[in-house]
Amino acid sequence: MTWFRVGLTVALLTAPVAAWPDPGRPLTFGPIAPGVWKATLGTPEDLTLLSAAGDTPELAALGAMTTAPFPLAEDAGIGRIANGRLALRFPLGPDEDIYGLGVDFASMRRTGLSYQLHVDHWSGRTGRTHAPVPFYVSTKGYGVFIDSSRYLTVSVGLGVRTAATVKPPPIDRTTHAKEWAEFPRSDSIEILVPAAGVDVYVFAGPTMLDAVRRYNLFCGGGALPPKWGLGFMTRTPTGYTAAQVLSEVAEFRKRGMPLDMIGLEPGWHDHAYPTSFQWDAVRFPDPARFLTRLAGEHVRANLWFNPYVSPTSSLYPALLPFAGSHLVWNGIVPDYSMPAARTAFADHLRTKVMGTAAGAIGGFKVDEVDGFDFWLWPDVAQFPSGHDGEQLRQTYGLLLQRTLMEIYRGLNQRTLGQVRGTNGGASRFPFVIYNDNYDFNEYITAVGNTGFAGVLWSPEVRAGEGEDMLRRIQAVCFSPLALFNGWATDTKLWTHADVVDAIRDVIQLRVRLLPYWYTAFAQYRFEGTPVIRPMPLVDGFRTASPRNTADPFAIRRVDEITDQYMVGDALLVAPIAPGTRTRRVVLPSGKWYDFYTGDLAGEHETISVTPALAQIPLFVRDGGLVPLIPARQFAPGRDEVLPLEVRYYGSEPGSMRLYDDDGETFDYERGQRSWTRLAIARGAAGSVTPSSAGARWRYSDVRFVQMTK
Amino acid sequence: MTWFRVGLTVALLTAPVAAWPDPGRPLTFGPIAPGVWKATLGTPEDLTLLSAAGDTPELAALGAMTTAPFPLAEDAGIGRIANGRLALRFPLGPDEDIYGLGVDFASMRRTGLSYQLHVDHWSGRTGRTHAPVPFYVSTKGYGVFIDSSRYLTVSVGLGVRTAATVKPPPIDRTTHAKEWAEFPRSDSIEILVPAAGVDVYVFAGPTMLDAVRRYNLFCGGGALPPKWGLGFMTRTPTGYTAAQVLSEVAEFRKRGMPLDMIGLEPGWHDHAYPTSFQWDAVRFPDPARFLTRLAGEHVRANLWFNPYVSPTSSLYPALLPFAGSHLVWNGIVPDYSMPAARTAFADHLRTKVMGTAAGAIGGFKVDEVDGFDFWLWPDVAQFPSGHDGEQLRQTYGLLLQRTLMEIYRGLNQRTLGQVRGTNGGASRFPFVIYNDNYDFNEYITAVGNTGFAGVLWSPEVRAGEGEDMLRRIQAVCFSPLALFNGWATDTKLWTHADVVDAIRDVIQLRVRLLPYWYTAFAQYRFEGTPVIRPMPLVDGFRTASPRNTADPFAIRRVDEITDQYMVGDALLVAPIAPGTRTRRVVLPSGKWYDFYTGDLAGEHETISVTPALAQIPLFVRDGGLVPLIPARQFAPGRDEVLPLEVRYYGSEPGSMRLYDDDGETFDYERGQRSWTRLAIARGAAGSVTPSSAGARWRYSDVRFVQMTK
Repeated sequence: MTWFRVGLTVALLTAPVAAWPDPGRPLTFGPIAPGVWKATLGTPEDLTLLSAAGDTPELAALGAMTTAPFPLAEDAGIGRIANGRLALRFPLGPDEDIYGLGVDFASMRRTGLSYQLHVDHWSGRTGRTHAPVPFYVSTKGYGVFIDSSRYLTVSVGLGVRTAATVKPPPIDRTTHAKEWAEFPRSDSIEILVPAAGVDVYVFAGPTMLDAVRRYNLFCGGGALPPKWGLGFMTRTPTGYTAAQVLSEVAEFRKRGMPLDMIGLEPGWHDHAYPTSFQWDAVRFPDPARFLTRLAGEHVRANLWFNPYVSPTSSLYPALLPFAGSHLVWNGIVPDYSMPAARTAFADHLRTKVMGTAAGAIGGFKVDEVDGFDFWLWPDVAQFPSGHDGEQLRQTYGLLLQRTLMEIYRGLNQRTLGQVRGTNGGASRFPFVIYNDNYDFNEYITAVGNTGFAGVLWSPEVRAGEGEDMLRRIQAVCFSPLALFNGWATDTKLWTHADVVDAIRDVIQLRVRLLPYWYTAFAQYRFEGTPVIRPMPLVDGFRTASPRNTADPFAIRRVDEITDQYMVGDALLVAPIAPGTRTRRVVLPSGKWYDFYTGDLAGEHETISVTPALAQIPLFVRDGGLVPLIPARQFAPGRDEVLPLEVRYYGSEPGSMRLYDDDGETFDYERGQRSWTRLAIARGAAGSVTPSSAGARWRYSDVRFVQMTK
Repeated sequence: MTWFRVGLTVALLTAPVAAWPDPGRPLTFGPIAPGVWKATLGTPEDLTLLSAAGDTPELAALGAMTTAPFPLAEDAGIGRIANGRLALRFPLGPDEDIYGLGVDFASMRRTGLSYQLHVDHWSGRTGRTHAPVPFYVSTKGYGVFIDSSRYLTVSVGLGVRTAATVKPPPIDRTTHAKEWAEFPRSDSIEILVPAAGVDVYVFAGPTMLDAVRRYNLFCGGGALPPKWGLGFMTRTPTGYTAAQVLSEVAEFRKRGMPLDMIGLEPGWHDHAYPTSFQWDAVRFPDPARFLTRLAGEHVRANLWFNPYVSPTSSLYPALLPFAGSHLVWNGIVPDYSMPAARTAFADHLRTKVMGTAAGAIGGFKVDEVDGFDFWLWPDVAQFPSGHDGEQLRQTYGLLLQRTLMEIYRGLNQRTLGQVRGTNGGASRFPFVIYNDNYDFNEYITAVGNTGFAGVLWSPEVRAGEGEDMLRRIQAVCFSPLALFNGWATDTKLWTHADVVDAIRDVIQLRVRLLPYWYTAFAQYRFEGTPVIRPMPLVDGFRTASPRNTADPFAIRRVDEITDQYMVGDALLVAPIAPGTRTRRVVLPSGKWYDFYTGDLAGEHETISVTPALAQIPLFVRDGGLVPLIPARQFAPGRDEVLPLEVRYYGSEPGSMRLYDDDGETFDYERGQRSWTRLAIARGAAGSVTPSSAGARWRYSDVRFVQMTK
């Protein structure tokens, strides 16, 4: 692109308002953690994303990363206060691209568009989504986080400034349509913060992945679910009774279909929409006995709720003093920005819902905290803390995750939950986002985007034809939470006889890969490295170039690779969409091998694959190690010792650090954990080197399998 | 619906913050015009919709309406100031419905949803649209207008307040899914105004139509286009030369296809996107001669522009001092909230673009003032007046219409233009909104919704198959602007031989109906009565009831009649969508007759019609009069005298007041106008009674035709 210089000085001197335009002032960034800097503009509000999440930075892990200087020019960030709002500006170089800004379902590259970050159902490329995290990373290798609970408007490389010293030239569209740019590239990222003050954080690289890691560690490190959370989950239909739930579990066991978690939908309460948080006396006459029986089957319950409290609930009087000014489905909206409200809610859950069988309740599904505007409280809503509807909207999911996390931490019992709406600062929360969309490609794009956002996301599998269900099950088995969501259907995993074996196989593969997944999550927890790595975060990957179109009414789009991603260090996942037989897979630099056969699949090239119906395309990096346990029906208990098969691919020497701990408690935070080095070279025997003598290492009989012949 | 009372007093006394919730204070409304009241909350900003539009209320016409008391309870409107923002609340009764809030493409009834009113391309039911007018009317017969240039968030009957004395009961969705309400009905309309102050206006009824009329009159009365503006318009492809344009006109004349206006797209300037506002020396070497030749053919030019000024323009130096902080397509964005900027622009247009042939330039097409966010300036933009990006976004279309209107007023020459984005206060502007959507049903819904919003809208007809083009041409011929938009196509109106006669017929019918349309516009101008009357504004029409669905993932929608509307007092228009042969038509109370045959079509019932391809279904009220002139190729000149055919339908005695004036100038504002009473009863001869002796009455030989046998 040609750039040219325009001198505006003279013209601006004649402008009617002398102080116009207000250039703002450079933000003053000071170090606050290794590789993390903070600047404050105005007087920040007390309820921010970080304060809502209540995170404690992992300073030691941040300190263990490579030292890096402040990644921007000293005066690169500009702040301006006008009309009680803030304007921020950060530089964007001509060859720089921006990723992040939360879970977008349509694309990854954020350059060239504008977004209003707003917790909501995904609503197109507007910035409204289930996790509109105001954190972005640059291909120049740094990250920026705006810690505000307001709806932020962010323009990324869009809106060329009149005063910019270099800018794209005007082009006559009539005569030079091909050269004409629909989105002239600006030199800035500009952010409107509708508040009187804000804290802004900058994270060093040197790579994008490093910046993401620093962000996650600053938010307390990534989530580490219990081992059983990495198994398989199903949800029973609304209104199921205890007997029906147990019968569903029995059906899974009878059919050899792995199961670790079972979700109870509306109906376990005696009132839902709004919610009573009381076991229904008819459908669940003896919750403790029911939960004990579930535990006996090695299955954890996951309890759905929306957080709007019914007047019929015994919890209602305790929370009414904290009720916001507006109801949701005629239930009160407790102001969980107030610690006393969180305590009251947690006390009720712990004593009245979980009780003595807390160990059998693995977690909660926090529904309806995202939107839509027409379901939730309006922005004019008032809350007793003095916070307003906008602030609570942006933080409600965070506050609930924090509350639930505190309960489980108190029980020294890990949890894995689901949440429909979350935001920045959520990295440490073991909650997986979900929604009702059902577009397969959008789902896969969203899975990838979570890697930039410090959150977890899984697609949905609901009822459908056999091939449709199978392809979707394959995809969820390679997402953070392997879940069949049967709340609104009579369809079961075994409804379609033609695909039931293939469904069982991929779930079984999920279970066998537990050591691999668990290590990926441990990397997230201790090193901040996301479990899901979208392609732009993968070493040796290059994105494609822009694509134009001849339709005069079309808006130009950019071609991106959003339909594949990596899980952990070794596995490249390329899900097959329902109705599709063949797909393109873009292999980054180096050699890549077929997971199933060990055969060379390609080297830094785009290949086409046509897998069998029973297989989801999986590829392993040259030198990659993939540890597996034997097939089983549920995750191993804390003291089980298992044999380990370590598959080795390609010809480069391979090594990995395999993580382990008790899989259930927070004792890992008190040293009860192990990192064991597995290494092998082609034609050689593998080696196993524990990092710390035997601390919570639960594998025996490690067998290396050279997959590539 | 069952309502029940909940006493919250005790609970709220224990709330942590004593003054919480802030109940706000009743707004104090005082009369400012007959049937119009105003309240001020805080300190209003200087740039509002009304100040941008620069309207002068039509006090005399307001005074001529039936006197009406303040239509709400004295303390009905509540205002609250918090965090530098305003919250407004107005009551909504249990049986009350709300219409308006601008041009929605999906529905008319606004009750039960939330919107953020934001000038933009239509983007689903979010409040973003080309005319997000913050004016609503209630089925209780009153209107409310919020005069703010901010993005207003409006919740209509949504968000039940905790403190409400009556509210819907909580219902357990699990066991009572049928009774459970997805959108519990609130008792309020709540509005967030992100500003420190605002003026709010209330308009009396007693009917919804009366409230709309008062609003339009308060905004200066509706637009009255020139007579030629009610004929037919075509747009030539981008880059057409003067010779090509003249050849296109000749083709219309040769084929007997009426034509009054021809639109010049990008290419008449020597630089577009950004715009130079200079005739291109190659394509238009002699603009005055070209325009004179057009005038000789009785055709007016309409000149496209987007308002972003190219550095290559001779206008650039004059406007650079008024440039906003951001460019659009690398052109400056003049701050037209500054009178000096408007003057500089108007001077340039008048002297450099229109010149001596101003009479041949009928108007302008003001493009790209609506959105998207990614095309226009960001909200952080600064303007030399001190106004910000949000304020200019909401008012830019208004400011440009005002500027152009002032030029034409100075020339004593009426105009009809097009604009892509407008807002409240625009009633008096003779500009028709348009966009690139192409969904037929959405278009028809939008046409209807303009009747609540004080704006004009026409669907688009572009290239297509024959039947598709015909059905769309039929629809635009019964919308405010009958336009074929050929800017991006080689297709002409005569491309499809199988439909060319039917296309010519309906355009001819449009031309023949000029007296009828002109009177409808005069009612808009002098009485505020919208030209297009959506069904809820039609006497004797009742809307349908809610419809549910069994899909657990669907959001419940309400069935409405959005695909038909009235034009003027007598004609009911029910456009046939492309690809459709049969449609339902809901006839309000009374008898309705087929426009073409005079036969009874039905009486207060829903009928099904399967018209011939060449006909758009049109129905006339019992006693309705429809005046027509003879077929012709262009609108009559100011001194032409024409015979008049007055069709009379049904058996009730019929009468109407037919308007006339010179059809071209503003002399009508200085008394040069006439209202002539036409009356007839079944079996009797018609009578013609001029209201003022002969003032600008240009019809002779009035012939009444009894259509119903």
